[in-house]
Amino acid sequence: VSVWAVVVAGGSGERFGAPKQFAMLGGRPMLAWAVDAARGACDGVVLVVPADRLDGRQYPVEKMVAGGASRSDSVRAGLEAVPADAEIVVVHDGARPLASGSTFRAVVEAVRAGADAAVPALAVTDTLKAVEDGRVTATIDRRGLVVVQTPQAFRADVLRAAHAQGAQATDDAGLVESLGATVRVVAGDPRNLKVTTPADLEVAQALVAR
Amino acid sequence: VSVWAVVVAGGSGERFGAPKQFAMLGGRPMLAWAVDAARGACDGVVLVVPADRLDGRQYPVEKMVAGGASRSDSVRAGLEAVPADAEIVVVHDGARPLASGSTFRAVVEAVRAGADAAVPALAVTDTLKAVEDGRVTATIDRRGLVVVQTPQAFRADVLRAAHAQGAQATDDAGLVESLGATVRVVAGDPRNLKVTTPADLEVAQALVAR
Repeated sequence: VSVWAVVVAGGSGERFGAPKQFAMLGGRPMLAWAVDAARGACDGVVLVVPADRLDGRQYPVEKMVAGGASRSDSVRAGLEAVPADAEIVVVHDGARPLASGSTFRAVVEAVRAGADAAVPALAVTDTLKAVEDGRVTATIDRRGLVVVQTPQAFRADVLRAAHAQGAQATDDAGLVESLGATVRVVAGDPRNLKVTTPADLEVAQALVAR
Repeated sequence: VSVWAVVVAGGSGERFGAPKQFAMLGGRPMLAWAVDAARGACDGVVLVVPADRLDGRQYPVEKMVAGGASRSDSVRAGLEAVPADAEIVVVHDGARPLASGSTFRAVVEAVRAGADAAVPALAVTDTLKAVEDGRVTATIDRRGLVVVQTPQAFRADVLRAAHAQGAQATDDAGLVESLGATVRVVAGDPRNLKVTTPADLEVAQALVAR
């Protein structure tokens, strides 16, 4: 079974103040860590970067393509570059530099075993609240809730079908769920954080230094 | 205005495999870090530990009391030891060793400025899903949702009223919300993680080493 990864790093980093996927982490761009994690577990990697970065630094990937205006557009651009005979596609966020090889293997294995898709998840251990204008308006019952990470693995045909309509979503698994597909949950890893703010980057730097 | 902290560390560590608040972090029990953070920002500290630890290692706090069967029971035990003239009470989780002094000051300041309570919070940046039997059953709309940390500051009378009925809750702010009190949100810090699993402890160790 041929497994390809799409590493999505096409964003402009609005919340971070700059394209965060190129922020330095242990001497190389964050993105390079995400690519390495994907390479170790997949037969090929498509890397999606902002169009103005296509001519810059090269990464050890089979294909580099330009991202779109939204995350979903970028995933679609990457998916189009995945060979038609790939049977499993793993979507990974370039802002998650510390995903482990074992997390990649776990999601791929769950799809091999019959799921349409598989995602790494952690139990919600913090309290969740709804906020409006800096004031709490409700506390959310967190029982049965998980936070979901990437890499997320999919049967290639299911992911292509989910993206065929041009839908926008922050999460690919959500798109396939809306088709009625089965999404399995595997154990996530707290070290696999998503770097959204400079403080998150400091956490990642501490983990890399260790 | 007199500000007291209740550091809650009365749990048995069911998910961790041992009372995690005593796990070593940078050469001392995790709990000692939480106490230090509270000391720097409050006039007095009540530390709540399991009853069988009352005779063990001492910490630089005004009072040590035995916890109860649940987190809420432990908070109540701590609250009873807070002097009657304290006007603001800050509840902090012993499993959050890396809370900063500035987070303590921010929640206290919000209560001084008129809120009934104040909690540190971070935007939810990961996708949330509901899971049953290892399968995703729904994706939760995360817009407007935050994850809430401790320290949480309260007007002492409001917190005492909320706990007077012996209610059980994983979160003190939730109790005062149910009384109709105003809970303000201040900026949380991703480094202020709650240590729930051994992997979380590794993240904390990396942060401390740095």
